[in-house]
Amino acid sequence: MERIKPRTLSGFMELLPAKQAQLEKMMQVLRETYALYGFAPLDTPAIEDAAILLAKGGGETEKQIYRFQKGDSDLALRFDLTVPLAKYVALHYNDLAFPFRRYQIAKVYRGERAQRGRFREFYQADIDIIGDGKLDIMNEAEIPAIIYRVFRGFGLNRFQIRVNNRKILTGFYAMLELSEKSGDIMRTVDKLDKIGAEKVASILVTDIGLTREQAEEILKFIAITGTNSDVIAALEGYIGRNEVFDTGLQELKAVTANLAAFGVPEENFAVDLTIARGLDYYTGTVYETTLLDHPEIGSVCSGGRYDNLAGYYIDKALPGVGISIGLTRLFYVLEEQGLLNPDLPSAPADALVLPMTEDIAACVAVAEQLRSTGIRVQLYAEQKKFKQKMSYADKLAVPYAVLLGEDEIAEGKCSVKDMRTGEQVKLTPAEAAEHILQGLANMGGALILEK
Amino acid sequence: MERIKPRTLSGFMELLPAKQAQLEKMMQVLRETYALYGFAPLDTPAIEDAAILLAKGGGETEKQIYRFQKGDSDLALRFDLTVPLAKYVALHYNDLAFPFRRYQIAKVYRGERAQRGRFREFYQADIDIIGDGKLDIMNEAEIPAIIYRVFRGFGLNRFQIRVNNRKILTGFYAMLELSEKSGDIMRTVDKLDKIGAEKVASILVTDIGLTREQAEEILKFIAITGTNSDVIAALEGYIGRNEVFDTGLQELKAVTANLAAFGVPEENFAVDLTIARGLDYYTGTVYETTLLDHPEIGSVCSGGRYDNLAGYYIDKALPGVGISIGLTRLFYVLEEQGLLNPDLPSAPADALVLPMTEDIAACVAVAEQLRSTGIRVQLYAEQKKFKQKMSYADKLAVPYAVLLGEDEIAEGKCSVKDMRTGEQVKLTPAEAAEHILQGLANMGGALILEK
Repeated sequence: MERIKPRTLSGFMELLPAKQAQLEKMMQVLRETYALYGFAPLDTPAIEDAAILLAKGGGETEKQIYRFQKGDSDLALRFDLTVPLAKYVALHYNDLAFPFRRYQIAKVYRGERAQRGRFREFYQADIDIIGDGKLDIMNEAEIPAIIYRVFRGFGLNRFQIRVNNRKILTGFYAMLELSEKSGDIMRTVDKLDKIGAEKVASILVTDIGLTREQAEEILKFIAITGTNSDVIAALEGYIGRNEVFDTGLQELKAVTANLAAFGVPEENFAVDLTIARGLDYYTGTVYETTLLDHPEIGSVCSGGRYDNLAGYYIDKALPGVGISIGLTRLFYVLEEQGLLNPDLPSAPADALVLPMTEDIAACVAVAEQLRSTGIRVQLYAEQKKFKQKMSYADKLAVPYAVLLGEDEIAEGKCSVKDMRTGEQVKLTPAEAAEHILQGLANMGGALILEK
Repeated sequence: MERIKPRTLSGFMELLPAKQAQLEKMMQVLRETYALYGFAPLDTPAIEDAAILLAKGGGETEKQIYRFQKGDSDLALRFDLTVPLAKYVALHYNDLAFPFRRYQIAKVYRGERAQRGRFREFYQADIDIIGDGKLDIMNEAEIPAIIYRVFRGFGLNRFQIRVNNRKILTGFYAMLELSEKSGDIMRTVDKLDKIGAEKVASILVTDIGLTREQAEEILKFIAITGTNSDVIAALEGYIGRNEVFDTGLQELKAVTANLAAFGVPEENFAVDLTIARGLDYYTGTVYETTLLDHPEIGSVCSGGRYDNLAGYYIDKALPGVGISIGLTRLFYVLEEQGLLNPDLPSAPADALVLPMTEDIAACVAVAEQLRSTGIRVQLYAEQKKFKQKMSYADKLAVPYAVLLGEDEIAEGKCSVKDMRTGEQVKLTPAEAAEHILQGLANMGGALILEK
């Protein structure tokens, strides 16, 4: 037979089972947390009409998109989950209840230049809340609570949700009579972390044409730091000079007011005036999330408030707020940094039932009894030597082996071996289930390890 | 702004939230059941090198495949989950422990002619067990137990797992000296349900060139019916005439021997000699599953034993056994037939917290307290009239509304309204959680209703 060398395309993540099990656990945390806040799971096609996906048109997106013909159809793979959401809400507008809250954890496609840690197929884990005409500020206030619960669910403590409000920035630039340049200014200020204050000032003056004084005013403004109440107190000094600014500050206060009630500790949250998000799309609260011990990773969860989700498809004002987690990239980085807990069970089964005699029926019965308590059981029926059977159990990293020899069968029992300690006990199937469930309960632990 | 009419491509399923919730529940049953039998979740790219996907080449597949260029790469979307599994096992052969058991629930793509109930993007939910060189017959015996648990998990009782063994058929045709024609014969016999015995006989004689006697022998053979032990007893009459037949019968007996131990009732299982599966791929046990009240749907879960998973990619004998559920089509048919239980909760939240005063902090605190017990809570903070708030709760079909007015806040309580009965009780948040959890527990019920 002529053979083709098997390969997986570069830029496409394909994991071995133990690693996949860890990614699945992260997905499970995301699904459960999003559901806990009343978001409905949504599933949209990976393929859409290219004209729909490219309605906004232009730029990087168009170059990166996977686009192809099938028959007469001009098709493309989604490059994010926001455009398909906009289409969905516009298309099903009459059948949805607003505010419409959805989560979607799905793959998106971007034909980027191949490089280490860059993926062409990757998971995004998004939530959005869409209002019909209006959307209360409390929705923006709730987002940090959700981000907090997700990252705590991953096992992290050392992260910070950084929040700003675009209206504060817009209003501030209006005070300086720099409204027309505010987009350019924000995109420049957004690079502060990467290039430093001096370089930002120089771009503002040289490239964007600000006066030295204006640039300094801006740097002074975004240098306002401290506790949340410090920052808000400093911002209150600007009140009364611009209406948009005042609204923005009102909103920021509403977002920070209920953090304690939402269970978000002070140390995991910061008002940060340097955050603008490089997109013109956002109009109110904006979010970024950083891992405190790994600032080099950048934001691992970003988003914000926008005023017009689906203007390309429908003549309705649909404001919303949403966040997105680039799950594949996050997982890749966590693994690279050695942050994934290696001691967390990653075996496909909790127990491996090993027949030691020809009596398979007894083994089947024990396996089924264990399964009825929720234990994940693999029955290993291959005709192998004992050593090979144990070596398979080791290779799978299965926590328990359940052995049924002549003695055990005669006594209506089974021998349960803890594969990590080597300890072995002879128990009835009911006792065995209890023993294993207890052991599994103690095997929990954080998905991600902080060092 | 110029607008584009939103649309979803034909042949692509996109569900409203309540229906999506039902599909998610089916996926949850599949994930849990597959995991219970020690299958590892696997995720492979939706896009592969076209040469890899088409290694087997030819036929319908090649016409239906979504294939496109990106840069210099000749790419294609997977059209099933078996070919990517074969590539995966060949590529990662040295890193896997065999038998390798994986499940994958993922979308596949086939550019079929558009017609009602036919999908171009659809979920398959597959399990496979791959051996290295050998694979014990017990793996084949376990498959009906898994199918049984999946369909019971869906809420069904009236289904039948039909099993045959290709070696019995191959051996039988060898007895009649029809080995060379056995492929053609099996493909014809496979149509028995659809076209009837007479037409099958006529094709066998006219198109395939059998004698009238041979055709009658075959029809007599596949007409063997009755209980499992009846059929096996009848088959034992043929023993000793062909080795392959004898091995097949041995295997069939092993598959049926442990059904009771596996917890599969007699009425959900039948040996059925008419089943061949139209693929040359299968070499041993073959499975089909039918809904007894809806034979017109055909098999909803099929598969079997094969000897050579990855011969196109690697010089290793990799026998396996697997089954596949066409989830999207199954879901479509169940919905069409009105079999999905409409009373099952499909709301994105279990409780909707409704502030009746300006005191949002109290509502946030109650919402978080309910969430801490696992209740899915949406906080509804929009500035609307009471009637509009209740109408939103109705539209979402949320089971409980939790109201916080001045009295409730003063007393440290909340009013919990059962949205189906209208009954309302004033409770502390802890009591409210208990009340709601109890109500939710009683709201269970089968996913699928049998009529």
